This record gives sequence, C-alpha cells and structure tokens, in this order.
Amino acid sequence: MIKEKGILFILSGPSGVGKGTVRKALFDQSTDLRYSISMTTRAPREGEVDGIDYFFKSRDEFEQLISEGQLIEHAEYVGNYYGTPRQYVEQTLEEGKDVFLEIEVQGALKVRENFPQGVFVFLIPPSLEELKDRIVSRGTETEEKVKNRLLAAKEEIDMMDAYDYVVVNDKVESAVNKVKAIVASEHCKRERVSHQYKKALEADQS
Amino acid sequence: MIKEKGILFILSGPSGVGKGTVRKALFDQSTDLRYSISMTTRAPREGEVDGIDYFFKSRDEFEQLISEGQLIEHAEYVGNYYGTPRQYVEQTLEEGKDVFLEIEVQGALKVRENFPQGVFVFLIPPSLEELKDRIVSRGTETEEKVKNRLLAAKEEIDMMDAYDYVVVNDKVESAVNKVKAIVASEHCKRERVSHQYKKALEADQS
Repeated sequence: MIKEKGILFILSGPSGVGKGTVRKALFDQSTDLRYSISMTTRAPREGEVDGIDYFFKSRDEFEQLISEGQLIEHAEYVGNYYGTPRQYVEQTLEEGKDVFLEIEVQGALKVRENFPQGVFVFLIPPSLEELKDRIVSRGTETEEKVKNRLLAAKEEIDMMDAYDYVVVNDKVESAVNKVKAIVASEHCKRERVSHQYKKALEADQS
Repeated sequence: MIKEKGILFILSGPSGVGKGTVRKALFDQSTDLRYSISMTTRAPREGEVDGIDYFFKSRDEFEQLISEGQLIEHAEYVGNYYGTPRQYVEQTLEEGKDVFLEIEVQGALKVRENFPQGVFVFLIPPSLEELKDRIVSRGTETEEKVKNRLLAAKEEIDMMDAYDYVVVNDKVESAVNKVKAIVASEHCKRERVSHQYKKALEADQS
C-alpha cells in the first residue's frame, strides 16, 4: 500500500458562531484527527488554558515568530493576532495523519492559498439574528465591540464561497456529527483513493 | 426557504461485491433516503421478492417499457436486462427527497449522462482475490459464468474514475457507515447550500 499523506481539515466561520465549542465537543469524542493548536495575542477567556485552547503569546513574541516564517498563516482580528504554527501541521500530514485547524475566516483564506487540497468547512448559525444573540449574550463585550463583530460576521458570510462545506451550528451534537461525516466521506473521495485500487489491480494481473 | 430538490445517490460496483447486502443493511436502519427499485429480467435468487428487491419482468415486458421511454437507463448484463424506472426517481427528487439507486456499473454510467449532479458511489472489495472468493462461494454459478463475471469485474474497476466516491466493502457495517457519511456530507456541500444563506443574509439587511 502506498504511504498516503493525511488530510488537512479547517473549521472556520464567523466570530461568535461557536467554532471552539464544536471543536471541543468533537475532540471530546474518540477521533483520529490531530488538533493543531492556534497561537494568539488575545487574553485568555475564563477557563481557557495555554497550550490547550491556544498558545497565548505577547505581541512581541508573535511578531518574532512571523519574521522567522514559523506560521502558516496569521491574521489580525479585532486588534489581536491569530496564527497557525507551521511545523506541527506539515510534519503530522507527512506522517499520514489528518490535521484539524479551528481558525478565523481571514486565516482560513490564507491557509487555502498554501493548502488548496485542504478541506474547508464553514460553520454558520441558523440565522444572523441568532449570531447576534450569541455575541450579545457572551456579555463580556462593549456595545461597540459587538457592533464591530457583527459587521465582520456579515462580511465573513460573503466569504462562504471559498469553502467546500457549510455546516449549521443549530445543535452542537448535530454540527459535530456533520463534521465527522465530512471527515469520513473525504477519505472515500475517488480522486484520493483510486490510485491505490489501480495498483492492487495491476498486482493481481501479474 | 427555497424549495430544494432531493439528491440522487447511486451505489454501484463490480458484480458480486455486495451492493445488495450494503443497500439492505442501509435501509434496515432509519434513513430519509427513498429506494428506487430496479427492474430486471433475471430470475429471482432465493429469498428475493418481486416489488421489494427488484421488479421482475419478462424480456417482452422489459422491451415494451424501453420502447415507451419509461426507463432512465437500462443495460444488458450477463444475458439479462437491468433498468431504472423513470417516474419514481424524477417525482421523488422533485418533492425534495433523496433517491437511492443500487445498480450495475453500465447502468450507473448511463445515469451519470442524465443526472450529472448525482452522487456516484463505487463499492469495491478489499482485493480482486476476495471478489473472486465471494463469487465462487455463492455456489450457484457454473465455472464459465464465474470466469465471465470476474472478467467483467476487472473491466468495471477501470471504470472507477467515473465515480465521486469509493467505498471498500470490507465489513458491511463499515461500508454502510461510509455511505451514510457521504449522504450527510453531500447535504453540507457549499455549492448546494450557499444560496440559501445568501438569501437569509439579504433578508436581514432590509
């Protein structure tokens, strides 16, 4: 059997849609996916742990890593940097394991430039109204911050066309099941697997 | 919400690979898929029921239906006709329900001409050797029929490129789960759903 590379899965979507919740619920279950932890300069929210939810860095540290080319992508979002460390992703894919990223829309678009063969999943709320409710009910933001976030979200929804799949986050369990279905079905894509079977057929014809 | 058409799923693959077993196991579970029963002139195998496994027809009856244009596709295979009645498929898709076909490779290729937007799944055994074992162990065929079947199977594997997905039938349960994952993920394909969200976004901007 030919050694196959892993598949890169990217979960993204508007701010406040619940990417982190879906990702956590997915990884609470048994999965063969490897999670690539993002890096950020934003302050940890309550309950978030450095090295598990994010690698939390200062602005200086982050800019140092950018200049060293150690990030696949980075973006500034609502005044903070977010980025994806390069080495873990490339090495894990090379080992034949799937990698899972949970990142902002700007970052996802940059990953697409570097990894066009990646599988891009856009998480979306049942309606923009519900998105607004969720952002407001987070309760830790000023009104202006909420307004900015919402404006950004509307722009991001227009970016849906750059993605392969759209998953509604109506219920976390349902969204997780859809992401799992996407992972399973991508492994059955003909263009990914047909050459393996053709090799087997050739071997049988000897 | 815009009324959406259903998706046409086609399960196909080499003779003897176990298409019927996978299809039955799939429909033994709860599913929203509607099964389109095929028509054939071959004799029922033990346990097969007219109107459930196939519509069993005489050669004269079958040729009458062909001439009336009542079949989406038909093919002659190992001396028998197989075909897909048109009305059920078109009407059910129009009602927004997914339709599931289980058909021979020749027929699947003809369906692809009429329904290029269909989702084509190729069921394959772990190896050609295992395919041979399965055909032989069916025990109801003469040696020459087995040889013919195997030759046809090798040709059919070359046809894999016309399909969207390849599912290995190593274990029936595993194959069924993969087919279910493909169905779920196809409903999340961005090109199928993005226009719904864009409409919602437009409505919100009023």
